[in-house]
Amino acid sequence: MTAYARLEATFRKLAAIGDALSMLQWDASAMMPDGGAESRAEQVATLRGISHEIITAPEIPDLLDQAEGEGLDAWERANLREMRRDWIHSAALPADLVDALARAESACEMIWREARPAADFKRVLPALSDLLGLVRQMGAIKSEKLGVGIYDALLDQYEPGGRSAEIDPVFDHLEGFLPGFIAQVLDVQARRPAPLPLPAPFPAAAQKELGLKLMAVLGFDFNHGRLDVSHHPFCGGTPDDVRLTTRYNESDFAPALMGVLHETGHALYEQGTPKGRWRSQPVGRSRGMVLHESQSLLMEMQACRSRPFVDFAAPLIKQAFGGQGPEWEADNLYRRGIRVERGFIRVEADECTYPAHVIIRYRLEKALIEGRMELADLPEAWNQGYRRLLGITPPDDRLGCLQDIHWYGGSWGYFPTYTLGAMTAAQLFQAAQAADPDILPGLGRGDFKPLLGWLRTHVHGQGSLLTGRDLVTRATGRPLDPAVFEAHLRRRYLEE
Amino acid sequence: MTAYARLEATFRKLAAIGDALSMLQWDASAMMPDGGAESRAEQVATLRGISHEIITAPEIPDLLDQAEGEGLDAWERANLREMRRDWIHSAALPADLVDALARAESACEMIWREARPAADFKRVLPALSDLLGLVRQMGAIKSEKLGVGIYDALLDQYEPGGRSAEIDPVFDHLEGFLPGFIAQVLDVQARRPAPLPLPAPFPAAAQKELGLKLMAVLGFDFNHGRLDVSHHPFCGGTPDDVRLTTRYNESDFAPALMGVLHETGHALYEQGTPKGRWRSQPVGRSRGMVLHESQSLLMEMQACRSRPFVDFAAPLIKQAFGGQGPEWEADNLYRRGIRVERGFIRVEADECTYPAHVIIRYRLEKALIEGRMELADLPEAWNQGYRRLLGITPPDDRLGCLQDIHWYGGSWGYFPTYTLGAMTAAQLFQAAQAADPDILPGLGRGDFKPLLGWLRTHVHGQGSLLTGRDLVTRATGRPLDPAVFEAHLRRRYLEE
Repeated sequence: MTAYARLEATFRKLAAIGDALSMLQWDASAMMPDGGAESRAEQVATLRGISHEIITAPEIPDLLDQAEGEGLDAWERANLREMRRDWIHSAALPADLVDALARAESACEMIWREARPAADFKRVLPALSDLLGLVRQMGAIKSEKLGVGIYDALLDQYEPGGRSAEIDPVFDHLEGFLPGFIAQVLDVQARRPAPLPLPAPFPAAAQKELGLKLMAVLGFDFNHGRLDVSHHPFCGGTPDDVRLTTRYNESDFAPALMGVLHETGHALYEQGTPKGRWRSQPVGRSRGMVLHESQSLLMEMQACRSRPFVDFAAPLIKQAFGGQGPEWEADNLYRRGIRVERGFIRVEADECTYPAHVIIRYRLEKALIEGRMELADLPEAWNQGYRRLLGITPPDDRLGCLQDIHWYGGSWGYFPTYTLGAMTAAQLFQAAQAADPDILPGLGRGDFKPLLGWLRTHVHGQGSLLTGRDLVTRATGRPLDPAVFEAHLRRRYLEE
Repeated sequence: MTAYARLEATFRKLAAIGDALSMLQWDASAMMPDGGAESRAEQVATLRGISHEIITAPEIPDLLDQAEGEGLDAWERANLREMRRDWIHSAALPADLVDALARAESACEMIWREARPAADFKRVLPALSDLLGLVRQMGAIKSEKLGVGIYDALLDQYEPGGRSAEIDPVFDHLEGFLPGFIAQVLDVQARRPAPLPLPAPFPAAAQKELGLKLMAVLGFDFNHGRLDVSHHPFCGGTPDDVRLTTRYNESDFAPALMGVLHETGHALYEQGTPKGRWRSQPVGRSRGMVLHESQSLLMEMQACRSRPFVDFAAPLIKQAFGGQGPEWEADNLYRRGIRVERGFIRVEADECTYPAHVIIRYRLEKALIEGRMELADLPEAWNQGYRRLLGITPPDDRLGCLQDIHWYGGSWGYFPTYTLGAMTAAQLFQAAQAADPDILPGLGRGDFKPLLGWLRTHVHGQGSLLTGRDLVTRATGRPLDPAVFEAHLRRRYLEE
């Protein structure tokens, strides 16, 4: 057996354990009673420990080296590259640092859960400071192994091959036009009549039925997945069995509906990754968080907030809730869907203001990781960012730097993927439409096949064969170009 | 670290993997879309493989031997005994026999799925013959390692320490009185007016609500479990997170309701096993299939078909379905619940005829395993058994020897546990009532605390500390006595 074949067998085993873990984590969020938490934690820790033992076995680095010389084809070479990346991220850290990180993450997150409602940043500062110290240690070690800067080493965990040197100019471009653009949009919006309100309640059962219907329209394969409820909606499970969740608010159907469409974008990506031999190999996986977010936002923001799709969906929405009157017409629903507002909370932000939230966080986390800023200065720096980019000042840290779990749970280097995903979505959607002019009219008929077909070929079916950058370049003819996203925003919010 | 402590750590890990497998298997039955089956099979096979590697590691037998001399307390000694038993059952077989068995089981079961509806025993005979050959090989190996006969070695997989030398006289006793007793019961029953029918449909939602309500009455802890739907109802999950399933038939609510009460009996046993240190150790597990079935049948047959409980439940049942009229009164519901009929199908059998179905299968499987009978003679021998014990002849093998999946799926030595469980249930229920005279009146108030308290102390909380035989003897003052079960049947079916 070749070294490469032995590695494939090892990673097939790791994939099966990883898939089992995904299902157990979905269950913990969507099904498990509270009393099951302790033994579930034991199950998860045990399976993770077994995975870690397998990938850090002493023969792995030798096998990785030997396989390089075994005359592999393009997919095998890419698979080997991804195996090495997995191995570096898993085996780079000494066991005591891994333990210390896990403890610091859970300690900090627990204190954050109290500090946030109390708007008390000082309470969590010591724990966050400990955690950041360990994250920087981890970053320094991975930086050396990957041969990149410390921030990029953390970013690489979420976006393989992601580089801040490429992000900076893109975000500079956004930062250059966003403040003026947002003012313009709000001005245009203020001169139009406000959209009509929709009459609550919206029964959860009707919301669910509508969500299932539109998931099917988008192309979700219910033979390989299902929709359930959890407190924090997500797309989990495995490519063969994708588990979406949502949460129903009976006084407003839009969050669950748009959330389901968003998660369906993630799900379609997973369901479309390569089958067969590559299903259980690193190269068969979806390609990083930027492309993943691009697929959810392509569905949610590009396709499902387009006027043709709203024209298609409006009668279904009206019927689902037994609505009557002009507030249920497509024009009103469309205007509601693209409403812009300056707010403090990222997860409630619209398409125009969202990048500002992300850029603020990206600049701050990079400065903190690179040691160019003190944690104690975070609240004020945060508020300055909001003043500069959005023209508003958070009244307290609950609505400021305490709002997101990411840093307090140990996720540093994640934030930029949201906005890079939104921009990639715009660029892919533009390229898809250029390649097939029937895509947009198709959405108006509830026919997603042309769009999904293009995505299957150019994104989903590529797995992790290419880097994210190369995939976007091949699919759209150029690397990520902020002008495409800007043009999309100008068209939708100023011209239509 | 002592050898014993190392074993505890190893078995804690095995328990976590086993718990993860339980959850994945529940999910496969209750949640998973069909398209997830292939990758789920891969997950399950991988985790089983890892478990098998862990328990067959070369140091385990030495550790088991060393630990014997380490001055253990009673629970530790029992734990070590159970560890050894696990090890024997896992490590006894050569890998190629394990593989051959898995293949033969799945091949035979697949053919059986076609042969049963076609009533074509000959079609499955070659595959069943192959499978039986391998099962006998397995039995011979385990027989040597355990120092018991070949049938007992198979029985031991389901009922640790179970011995056919103890089963034979008990079943002889039943066989002696059952045919005449059943005739008497049918005679008494025929002289009474038939129970009134209940008007369908019974909506699934109402059945579910009633089931949940009665689960709570019995003492099911919903912080450590839940109720869902699956094609084949079962009690799965883990002691900390018990997953019950049922199936609703809208033309008759009794099967799902009695099924839920039955499975709740299993669940209460699991939820009541020792917590803390023993939770994840072999000695903390429930004690074999006989006691498990005794707990489900104690709830279903002894407690929930008792007249006091039916008096309590009748108004709830009536209310659940908006019923009116005499057919909803306790008297009618009680009579319906203890209706006796000679039938061909075990799973549809009542309390009086069920043991006959089991005894027939026990005698046959024992003869086949011990090589005293040819498989080709099974259909005729089966039908002779039905004639002798129940006075009826199955019209074909679909209603005869093809009806149960057990043998065709490789489960030989399981059948006697059903009836031993029913008898143990009667004996435990009698002892509990003798110890606490408030138990039966409690059921009439929907108060299961006295009964559950007795079971927690004498059965559930004992885990696997004792053998099944010793547990029954300590709890009831004597080993399993068929006269107790006989007395229960005579009282319920001839005297009341």
